[in-house]
Amino acid sequence: MTTTVSAYAAPAAKAPLERTTVPRRPVGEHDVLIEIKYAGICHSDIHQARDGWGEGIFPMVPGHEIAGVVTEVGPGVTKFAAGDRVGVGCMVDSCRECDNCKAGLEQYCTGGGMVGTYNALDKSGEPTYGGYSTHIVVDEAYTLRIPDGLSLDIAAPLLCAGITLYSPLAHWNAGPGKKVAIVGLGGLGHMGVKIAHALGAEVTVLSQSLRKKDDGLKLGADHYYATSDAATFEQLAGTFDLIVSTVSAPLPLDRYLSLLKTDGAFVNVGAPEEPVSLNLFSVIGGRKTLAGSGIGGIRETQEMLDFCAEHGLGAEIELIRADQINEAYERVLASDVRYRFVIDTATI
Amino acid sequence: MTTTVSAYAAPAAKAPLERTTVPRRPVGEHDVLIEIKYAGICHSDIHQARDGWGEGIFPMVPGHEIAGVVTEVGPGVTKFAAGDRVGVGCMVDSCRECDNCKAGLEQYCTGGGMVGTYNALDKSGEPTYGGYSTHIVVDEAYTLRIPDGLSLDIAAPLLCAGITLYSPLAHWNAGPGKKVAIVGLGGLGHMGVKIAHALGAEVTVLSQSLRKKDDGLKLGADHYYATSDAATFEQLAGTFDLIVSTVSAPLPLDRYLSLLKTDGAFVNVGAPEEPVSLNLFSVIGGRKTLAGSGIGGIRETQEMLDFCAEHGLGAEIELIRADQINEAYERVLASDVRYRFVIDTATI
Repeated sequence: MTTTVSAYAAPAAKAPLERTTVPRRPVGEHDVLIEIKYAGICHSDIHQARDGWGEGIFPMVPGHEIAGVVTEVGPGVTKFAAGDRVGVGCMVDSCRECDNCKAGLEQYCTGGGMVGTYNALDKSGEPTYGGYSTHIVVDEAYTLRIPDGLSLDIAAPLLCAGITLYSPLAHWNAGPGKKVAIVGLGGLGHMGVKIAHALGAEVTVLSQSLRKKDDGLKLGADHYYATSDAATFEQLAGTFDLIVSTVSAPLPLDRYLSLLKTDGAFVNVGAPEEPVSLNLFSVIGGRKTLAGSGIGGIRETQEMLDFCAEHGLGAEIELIRADQINEAYERVLASDVRYRFVIDTATI
Repeated sequence: MTTTVSAYAAPAAKAPLERTTVPRRPVGEHDVLIEIKYAGICHSDIHQARDGWGEGIFPMVPGHEIAGVVTEVGPGVTKFAAGDRVGVGCMVDSCRECDNCKAGLEQYCTGGGMVGTYNALDKSGEPTYGGYSTHIVVDEAYTLRIPDGLSLDIAAPLLCAGITLYSPLAHWNAGPGKKVAIVGLGGLGHMGVKIAHALGAEVTVLSQSLRKKDDGLKLGADHYYATSDAATFEQLAGTFDLIVSTVSAPLPLDRYLSLLKTDGAFVNVGAPEEPVSLNLFSVIGGRKTLAGSGIGGIRETQEMLDFCAEHGLGAEIELIRADQINEAYERVLASDVRYRFVIDTATI
């Protein structure tokens, strides 16, 4: 039976979010019903609620950093039971048949693409609604287990911010003996610092200014440099094995590539809408890599949650009520958040 | 004793090359004196002789695709003896002490950079003169052995064109089960097709037109597509594990990146002088890599020569007299060469 649940939604592009209700599908054979406890606010929520990519489905309930508790399971569910602490990230389904899905790279599904947790159509053609809500029904195959010892509120942002950084750090072998730079110290970047440090790498933050330097060092960075200071680029030339950029402003890529060692990689997880300019000699000298990475697959997301629990890592959060969402959006856009807003969904 | 040898040189930027003489240093402790038999004409010879990069040292004797025979060795030489068939590529020295030099990546030397075979200053501050000449003196550590069974004339272009393609193909694991595309079928590209095919990869040529299709298939390509046909990009979307671009014209990178599989790499060995435009979402979707590669180290160059000898691979060449160099330059610029001009240095 389809149920109606409370949610906060943008009724139309650029309209403020407001309290409403949305339908949730009946709990199917392989579904779990989750009582959402916390939902993180990702920068991309704002982008989509304001229809920045021009393909928004409205009303839109954003939220793909979801932590909660299972309250009901379908008859075919084997991995979860009522009472389990669980999370849902950026996707709730994918084709499950392409090479990428089979390899655990569902985020790169080539069989029609992953089904987003919100602002997407599921396989039956119904719109998906995200985590700014009291409940959600999700296939167990796209549901993650949140380990004991990891509080649900600080775990919620791991489902997007955490995996978005963990995946490239793991893929490009951040670890002992490696020098890793994280560009930008926001919601994504602060998780990058924590995870890279926990992986054993020597971590440098490259931020526009030194304003958050104390925070960065407390989060686990070994070094902190301002990119507004031209001396930074001279001083750090040829330093890093890996640079992960979380910023969505267009960076002077050639200057950043000059900071890499031979065979180093500059990986974008944030990206500007507009094309960037690049001199290809910046990658030829030193056999350098310019790459990108998008969230992570389901298996890897579970691996990340287990890793974070083992190392006691959660996001730095500011807990808000649902009626503060619109204000929080403004503060995110003003970079006035340290480092993630999380909605207490009991207030919806 | 410094000797004076015959050579063809550009007396000044943009001036036609003419016959002259240049000094060669005395055969030192670790040096070999090589009687040059053949010298390939690389596109970058023309670029430098015409001072395209603005830092030319004149008079300039181009030539870094050198094949010849050892006629004298210094007292400390252990690897070579008079009569040995040898080659010299793009470098004749490097710092020998940095991590890259120690790792056999002398082409990425960070201790001052490799010393180019021509248009460079050696460690004593003297200009180096390249292969358009009758003799050259080179440290044995930067001298390659040309295996028996590989004719010197078709071996000469391997010292730049061969290694420039072999290195990225080997580094990015071209081989059985891999789909590899070579962009551009010129001096570099035709060696890429031969080597990728010999490595066991399924090889596709992406060329502006189908003009050289018959050649491409004969050289070892399995498929041949025209990039001037927009349908090519639709048809081949998501196809390749590796694309190596040999062209120096600015390509529409986003379109080429769309041809890669997840985790695929687009590697530039040619590159335009001007910056190119790139949408970073082209690498984020599918965790793709945009990279570069420059020639190869000494150890790898020897490996390449041995591989080519084993597989019977040499360049497709057009042998010319020294007095045809200027005409050959014009023909290279007009893409009128299949696929490498090689100078018979006996005609100098």
